[in-house]
Amino acid sequence: MSINGTPGVILTPQNIELYKPALNAYSPADLADLAANKTSSERTLIFNSISPQLAASTFEYLPFYVQKEVLNALPSSQAAVLLNNLSPDDRTAFLEELPTDVSNQLLKYLTPEERSLTLKLLGYPEGSVGRLMSPDYIAVKMDWTIKEVLDYIRAHGRDSETINVIYVVDDQGKLIDDLRIRELLLAPFDATIADIADSKFITLSVTEDEEKAVNVFRKYNRVALPVVDNRGILLGLVTIDDILHVAEKENTEDMQKIGGVEALDEPYMQIPFLTLMRKRASWLVILFLGEMLTASAMGFFSDEISKAVVLALFLPLIISSGGNAGSQASTLIIRAMALGEVTLKDYWRVMRREILSGLFLGLVLGCIGFLRVSAWTLFTDIYGVHWLLIALTIFFSLIGVVLWGTLMGSMLPLVLKFFRIDPATSSTPTVATLVDVTGVIIYFSIALFILQGTLL
Amino acid sequence: MSINGTPGVILTPQNIELYKPALNAYSPADLADLAANKTSSERTLIFNSISPQLAASTFEYLPFYVQKEVLNALPSSQAAVLLNNLSPDDRTAFLEELPTDVSNQLLKYLTPEERSLTLKLLGYPEGSVGRLMSPDYIAVKMDWTIKEVLDYIRAHGRDSETINVIYVVDDQGKLIDDLRIRELLLAPFDATIADIADSKFITLSVTEDEEKAVNVFRKYNRVALPVVDNRGILLGLVTIDDILHVAEKENTEDMQKIGGVEALDEPYMQIPFLTLMRKRASWLVILFLGEMLTASAMGFFSDEISKAVVLALFLPLIISSGGNAGSQASTLIIRAMALGEVTLKDYWRVMRREILSGLFLGLVLGCIGFLRVSAWTLFTDIYGVHWLLIALTIFFSLIGVVLWGTLMGSMLPLVLKFFRIDPATSSTPTVATLVDVTGVIIYFSIALFILQGTLL
Repeated sequence: MSINGTPGVILTPQNIELYKPALNAYSPADLADLAANKTSSERTLIFNSISPQLAASTFEYLPFYVQKEVLNALPSSQAAVLLNNLSPDDRTAFLEELPTDVSNQLLKYLTPEERSLTLKLLGYPEGSVGRLMSPDYIAVKMDWTIKEVLDYIRAHGRDSETINVIYVVDDQGKLIDDLRIRELLLAPFDATIADIADSKFITLSVTEDEEKAVNVFRKYNRVALPVVDNRGILLGLVTIDDILHVAEKENTEDMQKIGGVEALDEPYMQIPFLTLMRKRASWLVILFLGEMLTASAMGFFSDEISKAVVLALFLPLIISSGGNAGSQASTLIIRAMALGEVTLKDYWRVMRREILSGLFLGLVLGCIGFLRVSAWTLFTDIYGVHWLLIALTIFFSLIGVVLWGTLMGSMLPLVLKFFRIDPATSSTPTVATLVDVTGVIIYFSIALFILQGTLL
Repeated sequence: MSINGTPGVILTPQNIELYKPALNAYSPADLADLAANKTSSERTLIFNSISPQLAASTFEYLPFYVQKEVLNALPSSQAAVLLNNLSPDDRTAFLEELPTDVSNQLLKYLTPEERSLTLKLLGYPEGSVGRLMSPDYIAVKMDWTIKEVLDYIRAHGRDSETINVIYVVDDQGKLIDDLRIRELLLAPFDATIADIADSKFITLSVTEDEEKAVNVFRKYNRVALPVVDNRGILLGLVTIDDILHVAEKENTEDMQKIGGVEALDEPYMQIPFLTLMRKRASWLVILFLGEMLTASAMGFFSDEISKAVVLALFLPLIISSGGNAGSQASTLIIRAMALGEVTLKDYWRVMRREILSGLFLGLVLGCIGFLRVSAWTLFTDIYGVHWLLIALTIFFSLIGVVLWGTLMGSMLPLVLKFFRIDPATSSTPTVATLVDVTGVIIYFSIALFILQGTLL
């Protein structure tokens, strides 16, 4: 009996037997989808009625907050089976999210062998390649024949994370080549590994940042890469499907930071309201405190404002243009840095380019601003006899503020990187706020210079 | 002689013979890296001295603007060989970027077989799965034995895009199963495909959007997925390395749009200055024209401003808080929509959540604003005797503007999606600009209401 065909079905202890065959016929990804949308008691029923292997692979596809709940609801004997059946990299990913005492508790469920493996993986720094790595791979020696390798795969390949790539190691376990399964299958049975080896291979270092691993995968178009320690000993492998998830996670974090929110780390629809508020309020408050400086800065110019209220009218226009230009520049540079297109040593080329950009964009907006004041003057007398001076003030202020915003927006990510802070922290709202405060000063200074003796 | 070891080396027609062996020993990805950083005449020398196979695979790793240049510099006989040696999906990706007349010219270089293949691929809509697809795959029949399949792979696998997955088709070419190479290698030689087939498989439709394909890959953790037409006939396959690139491209576009720039489509360091300016100026000008409405809106309140200059001092603070809150909300929703976490039908849940969020965040900022005015009053008399009324104006304005900004920021992406416009178009600067204009009105209306008869 299909579950998908009857979407309204509610699983109960009474009817679960009926659906057992259908549930066991699901693919793990689809079953995870189904389970994630059920109530927690139905979810427990599902996990109780599927095979341990299916339970483990389905568990790997669930989001963390559902995983936690499923494991809590299972009786401890079943939880132990589930944990032992998980593939090592997915187990590490789950355990590292838990508080230490809970994860220590769960480690006790593991067999000694799986436990020592897991402890080793958890020993690598968070966000490192070691945490993504699977220690289940196929390693062969140079003098084996293709036939021997294929027999070996038939005997040992079941637990390997992937058999699309086979690794060649020497007697010390040092990686000396990687071979795609294609090369093996295309070679005659009696050839040896040495016959088809080319000693060209790319490795990831176990302590490397997972973000760097994404860039290596992107560059070399591989489905799996071997992980080695600093002596070149093969420790495991990372597969590209995990990399796709890392890349998406990094991109989500970057985007959220660019938008001025702390990275959520959970899907928007699932994150608890108070956590969401904490992550949003913290930045909003920081920005608010920064933006308060605009009030202080304007306080210095309150005499000028009362003398020429017309100046106040253009204030939002001027400072927001600087903020927009800065948002553009910072987004472009943050993204180019994440993709490795721009590095710290390019700072001078970036700066030169952005100074030119700022001048050009400022000039474009400045001209429009100038025309706006001139055009309005034809129809109203809101700007009075000194309309030309006002138009010039707007013109030069826009050039100054846009240039300054562009420069700030492009340089801030590089400066942050220099101090080893994530460049994405220079979010568009942060840049806009910084530019607002300085924009007020630039605008009124230019106004004072041009309008002194006439309006001011 | 190594090229990497002597980074300062300049390749010339005189010394190129010396470096030929070193160049031919490079991996395509690394050689592409080297070539991209050389002058165009050196690049032509490189392509002239490597094997046609290496030239084709290196070409596939080059960015488009370098590809174009390399092809232009090669004599037409060599260009023909290169084009014919490209894998069909990479050839499509290159040709689709060219103007139609140039790509028609190049199509003439292809052998009739490759040409008809390429024309078929180019016939699929831009951005569809068909454009990503490779038609080189291994397809077998249900009654074949494992031994027969392995022999077939040995004979035909060389040109296949991947042999990590083998497809099973019926006599009409309809896809009836996919098998990972692992399943084949683990099975005994004399078993048949029917013995190990499970008839469970996931497909991509050839006309589907490539963005959807990314989500399918993310969900099912596959290295390759088969592409079928609407009758289920197998047409080709898409590999995950191409998907990683599509995902990165989509993410870059989304981020750039969020930052208020048109998608660049080229790396920041390579894009010509004038193109960069066009892509940046267009949005800046649109935003500027929108922001001009703040000046008009404030014009209506110029009497109030001249009566109470103190109101102008807080204007940037108030409206930028609304913009920041809106930036946060729009970024969160745009990203959640791109990941498929939020869809149009969730609009009511999102709206309810964001109204609550806006009220909460507005209350937080409102309290800080209220305290700021109260605290300053202890030390200065800038706010005069009516400081409490001013503080209340700030308090209520912040709640109103932040609530409004949050609501606009979260709903605009959904509204755009409803009208089939990319949600990322509701960039943070766009939301900030919209909120600035309405923020001015909200602020002065609340001020009028509270301060009428006292300050105003």
